[in-house]
Amino acid sequence: MTQHSLTLVSKNKHFGGTLTKYSHLSPTTQCVMVFNVFLPEEAVENKTKVPVLYCLGGLTATEDNFAQKSGFGPRAAQYGLALVFPDNSPRNVRFEAAGANPDIGYSAGFYLNATKDPWDKNWKMYDYVTKELPAVLAENLPIGGHGALTIFLKNQSNFKSVSAFAPICHPSKSSWGLFAFPQYLGEDRSTWEEYDTIELLKRYKHNDEFRSDVKVLIDQGTGDEFLNPDRLHTSVLIETVKTLGLENQFVIRHHEGYNHGYYFISTFVNDHIDHHAAALGLTLRL
Amino acid sequence: MTQHSLTLVSKNKHFGGTLTKYSHLSPTTQCVMVFNVFLPEEAVENKTKVPVLYCLGGLTATEDNFAQKSGFGPRAAQYGLALVFPDNSPRNVRFEAAGANPDIGYSAGFYLNATKDPWDKNWKMYDYVTKELPAVLAENLPIGGHGALTIFLKNQSNFKSVSAFAPICHPSKSSWGLFAFPQYLGEDRSTWEEYDTIELLKRYKHNDEFRSDVKVLIDQGTGDEFLNPDRLHTSVLIETVKTLGLENQFVIRHHEGYNHGYYFISTFVNDHIDHHAAALGLTLRL
Repeated sequence: MTQHSLTLVSKNKHFGGTLTKYSHLSPTTQCVMVFNVFLPEEAVENKTKVPVLYCLGGLTATEDNFAQKSGFGPRAAQYGLALVFPDNSPRNVRFEAAGANPDIGYSAGFYLNATKDPWDKNWKMYDYVTKELPAVLAENLPIGGHGALTIFLKNQSNFKSVSAFAPICHPSKSSWGLFAFPQYLGEDRSTWEEYDTIELLKRYKHNDEFRSDVKVLIDQGTGDEFLNPDRLHTSVLIETVKTLGLENQFVIRHHEGYNHGYYFISTFVNDHIDHHAAALGLTLRL
Repeated sequence: MTQHSLTLVSKNKHFGGTLTKYSHLSPTTQCVMVFNVFLPEEAVENKTKVPVLYCLGGLTATEDNFAQKSGFGPRAAQYGLALVFPDNSPRNVRFEAAGANPDIGYSAGFYLNATKDPWDKNWKMYDYVTKELPAVLAENLPIGGHGALTIFLKNQSNFKSVSAFAPICHPSKSSWGLFAFPQYLGEDRSTWEEYDTIELLKRYKHNDEFRSDVKVLIDQGTGDEFLNPDRLHTSVLIETVKTLGLENQFVIRHHEGYNHGYYFISTFVNDHIDHHAAALGLTLRL
């Protein structure tokens, strides 16, 4: 038995590799966590170590959404790339508030470390995703080494690339953040900045503090139901990137008519996998 | 207002085209039915008439399963092919038995016309899928003209090709059919034959009664949880095809280790779309 032991929940062959769901008792979130992981054929057959892409679901997501609906399979298999799909919050934690509202609690972990009662005991998703899960994977699966935008910005030495679909760029100013952050983190807004892409970017006074070899890919549909009223603030991100002179590092694309859902994501999933594969130096095997 | 009017439920841009959910009041099933339809870009933009592929979900499916999880999008867009995803049973019909068991009632329509009370009023899925739905589509959407295996076998003049993932080949001998058919159709087994691929095939004494230009593609995973005990009877189909000398028309493939779920289906969905596109004379636009 390893330090972090995994329990098999389900296993499916998928594009020559396997899509497996595991559960494990997490010391970080103090509850049982579940994740899906895709291993390409060579990792399954020969236990060859392969690079890994973390796919973090947004509000309302579980470990299944991206795994089931994104259509990542063919491209991941062609690159020999592993993908990990964590759940986005603790589950089955026993207090009423956890399941009461779609914008906080279950499926709304915001990948932050909560500091306010009752959330502070279990809602440690930042530590779970950046520390515990990479360690669990490295120990149990043939995945090489140890996200979302804020996680990448604070961990540039651990991750090689990042991309996002329709992200909440500026949660401190978005109705979602204004609702959830005070409950998770308290009223002191300086604590919110750690989980706000715009605020983290503003810390880079000069563009040479931002790794010059990194490219960030962001896709946004113009038919997104959360653009009006604007809860995403993509325009603020574009402005901030320009002010900081980071235009060469950020590729922010708008796609006419696409909305916020998985039919949008699956349309462009190949571009995102290509983006990460390039950063990892992988080549497509046709 | 057309004869068959549709109500828009949701609309998503997808691979340049649209994935739309409609509801309509069905005179056939005497309730509100729901389906998804993918229209490729040219059908949306220019109302160009495009060929259509019917994707019928199996037990436990709704109109969403294949639409969301199969990964059909890129290939359908490349061919300019429409896909229709009907629900597989009536819904919201008010009698207890309808929602009580996963093997009969909701999500278990078996695409048959029920003749026994209480199912005979609403469970007319054969007529719904082969008659009403094609008429509804032709009237409302730029889809040219008006399946599952049995539907194809009885309607060879209406459909050009057929394929299936892990089908119940011989429901009269499968625990599913033995449970549901008496309730839907009664104890007279001759009425079951209309919905049993093996029995329908046996009606073809000579292979020249089976259209010689037709190829049937069937994919089956060897890790399918319904092979042991065998509830699918793929081996009986293979035997029947051989006896009838139809080996040239049936391509029945076994895939090592794949199970019964969508991670299996999405792995081979391109092959199925290619199969139907070839029958329709479509070419891939890369």
